[in-house]
Amino acid sequence: MSRIEQQLSAKGLVLPTVSMPAANYVPYTVSGNQVFLSGTLPIVDGKPSFIGKLGDNFTIEQGQETARCCVLNILAHLKNALNGDLDRVKRVVRLGVFVNATPDFTDHPKVANGASDLMVELFGDVGRHARFAVGVSGLPFGVAVEVDATFEI
Amino acid sequence: MSRIEQQLSAKGLVLPTVSMPAANYVPYTVSGNQVFLSGTLPIVDGKPSFIGKLGDNFTIEQGQETARCCVLNILAHLKNALNGDLDRVKRVVRLGVFVNATPDFTDHPKVANGASDLMVELFGDVGRHARFAVGVSGLPFGVAVEVDATFEI
Amino acid sequence: MSRIEQQLSAKGLVLPTVSMPAANYVPYTVSGNQVFLSGTLPIVDGKPSFIGKLGDNFTIEQGQETARCCVLNILAHLKNALNGDLDRVKRVVRLGVFVNATPDFTDHPKVANGASDLMVELFGDVGRHARFAVGVSGLPFGVAVEVDATFEI
Repeated sequence: MSRIEQQLSAKGLVLPTVSMPAANYVPYTVSGNQVFLSGTLPIVDGKPSFIGKLGDNFTIEQGQETARCCVLNILAHLKNALNGDLDRVKRVVRLGVFVNATPDFTDHPKVANGASDLMVELFGDVGRHARFAVGVSGLPFGVAVEVDATFEI
Repeated sequence: MSRIEQQLSAKGLVLPTVSMPAANYVPYTVSGNQVFLSGTLPIVDGKPSFIGKLGDNFTIEQGQETARCCVLNILAHLKNALNGDLDRVKRVVRLGVFVNATPDFTDHPKVANGASDLMVELFGDVGRHARFAVGVSGLPFGVAVEVDATFEI
Repeated sequence: MSRIEQQLSAKGLVLPTVSMPAANYVPYTVSGNQVFLSGTLPIVDGKPSFIGKLGDNFTIEQGQETARCCVLNILAHLKNALNGDLDRVKRVVRLGVFVNATPDFTDHPKVANGASDLMVELFGDVGRHARFAVGVSGLPFGVAVEVDATFEI
């Protein structure tokens, strides 16, 4: 069991079972020593979850939970990319956090911290990443957060 | 004639004639073996086309056609980047699909499939890419879709 | 003094003093010979500034000034990444320009030119970059523009 999965386990977190997208894109590509994860949704039990908008019907805490759920799905796909061994990650390079929010919402960084905090809790200094956090007018299936990620292996 | 352009030709598709942006940015940069395409608009006959919003005055099919048009413009620029030989592409690494949509629109993945499907039809397995698809509040000139792309050569 | 800072000085521009984000992300990561800057806000004297929306209470000129301010903050962080020597930049690879704008705003490219022009004024041909410019529904603290950037060193 990888060190990262021991960390997950110690926190009571389980990686979801993930499946291939039902379309002509893939969950990740590998180019040189960089792994590019697709924009990843908060999927729970195979279904898009956390349907709602920040600034309307979701609290910041719910947004953070959504961001965390996106990261778990990212790590599940990344584990597949790395033949099961998440310890091969040398650096979480960059996260892109898209927050489904109303035009007057301004706390995107707090929502994105749900993703950033989990990365650092799991990966330590290797998990400290560049990121952007922006508000978007809508997201697939109406989910509250979508996260894309680049890793160095 | 490159294999990719034969595929285009067989589908009755023609790469548009593209010009340099009238500003201090360029259609693409090359860094190592990665080519970064600028966010590319649906330009037809030199003019931004497909002006409209998903969820308002554009159907999903029109959105898909717009995404496809962005990809044709991307490939026209990429051909210039690769001295005319699109067969030098080793991998379509990543697409970023920005959909100009109303706050209640949720079918961004279907729109983005217009871009993804064409990539795979042309490049085969090499065309399978990571991607994100998000809804944005607006796009340059009011176009319905903007696509950016990263290729490995 | 680096050539780039001489250019800044000749233009009467001063790099701001920047600090680490108060969160689990960092202003930049380095992966191979690429430097990835976080989505960077228009910070003045340590505070998010240029609070407003294009198409509502901000003119295009104010948007351009905001984009320029984001670039100054990017360069301040980049200088730290490069141990004080901005001349180590081999290429400005890519800018991502997020414009906080109303749904009917369509001049995102003009706003983004505020960032692009400064890059080319400072770096010359090395500063010519790929970029995307999109309208978003909101940005952290309500600022008008956020810019992320990738450099080759």
